[in-house]
Amino acid sequence: MDERLKRQMDFALEIDKEKNIFRQTHLSGHGRNENDAEHAWHMSIMAYLLREYSNEEIDIAKVMLMCLIHDIVEIDAGDTYAYDAENLKTQKAREDAAKERIFSILPEDQKEELIGLFDEFEAYETAESKFAHAMDNLQPLMLNNSNGGADWRQHQVCLSMVYGRQSKTKLGSEKLFDQVTDKIIKENIENGNIKPE
Amino acid sequence: MDERLKRQMDFALEIDKEKNIFRQTHLSGHGRNENDAEHAWHMSIMAYLLREYSNEEIDIAKVMLMCLIHDIVEIDAGDTYAYDAENLKTQKAREDAAKERIFSILPEDQKEELIGLFDEFEAYETAESKFAHAMDNLQPLMLNNSNGGADWRQHQVCLSMVYGRQSKTKLGSEKLFDQVTDKIIKENIENGNIKPE
Repeated sequence: MDERLKRQMDFALEIDKEKNIFRQTHLSGHGRNENDAEHAWHMSIMAYLLREYSNEEIDIAKVMLMCLIHDIVEIDAGDTYAYDAENLKTQKAREDAAKERIFSILPEDQKEELIGLFDEFEAYETAESKFAHAMDNLQPLMLNNSNGGADWRQHQVCLSMVYGRQSKTKLGSEKLFDQVTDKIIKENIENGNIKPE
Repeated sequence: MDERLKRQMDFALEIDKEKNIFRQTHLSGHGRNENDAEHAWHMSIMAYLLREYSNEEIDIAKVMLMCLIHDIVEIDAGDTYAYDAENLKTQKAREDAAKERIFSILPEDQKEELIGLFDEFEAYETAESKFAHAMDNLQPLMLNNSNGGADWRQHQVCLSMVYGRQSKTKLGSEKLFDQVTDKIIKENIENGNIKPE
């Protein structure tokens, strides 16, 4: 096997480990915890189907790839729960080290491309990044809502925490925020799943 | 929420069930069985990274979406193991019924688009379908090989069965067949993981 192909196949095998990184979100039907690979797959399909609601014109292939690879660094860095203030402080340093190790398995040009895409996602500036983040927020919100808000109750999440993250969905899609996110949050405040403060 | 968006969100929630459809393939590191959502995620990234080896020019965004959605029908139809002759006989009828029920949750235009993409994958005729199938074959081959061929030994798979399926990788990529697939199969025949006949 030539060197380039060998590195590509080594990377393909390495990222299999993402299937062992579990999140706080639970599958619908009060199922087990979801893992990062499943979350990425789900976000990517949702991005494609909901692309008409993006505030700005987007390159949907780029958004889908961004969704698929955005959690690869968690193979080394672990999942950081959206409302875990302590672990959020060290998240960037852990993810930077992971990014360098894991993407370096690839040939140089593909390493640069995927790191570029990961950094673009993290920077939250481009239209593609904003829409990918909207999916990263909406997908677990949808699952948690389908389970009667069990994850919010378990972690005693309050309104300001949820809006702190979820209101950024507006940056990617005003319509999805207004018609889905905000309605789900308001319902879950009303029925006590999200604490008022 | 307007009717179109409601149907899109209902579909997004419905496909969460794909994470509960388990395959015969095991994760690397002699892990647990893999599920369909993880498999689709993995195939889609591999398609992107290995696209330079496609025999024909391909629309890579189409291939990636094809990879992501190709197993959704298994939510109702279940996974059919590649070497299970009995279940392969009824696979098409089971999957046709599933296709109609599940994609009908979507708005009509998206139902038609995704069924079209699924049918294109199944027909094995276009360049995109051939390359997506190459990934569908290569991804479990890679995992099984990383686990010392444990899945082949467990199912007492023989050479003609493996080549019957895996040789079709050639239709999508001569190079991946020659440099990866064929080498892996030959090594696993030599060390007794795949029976000669």
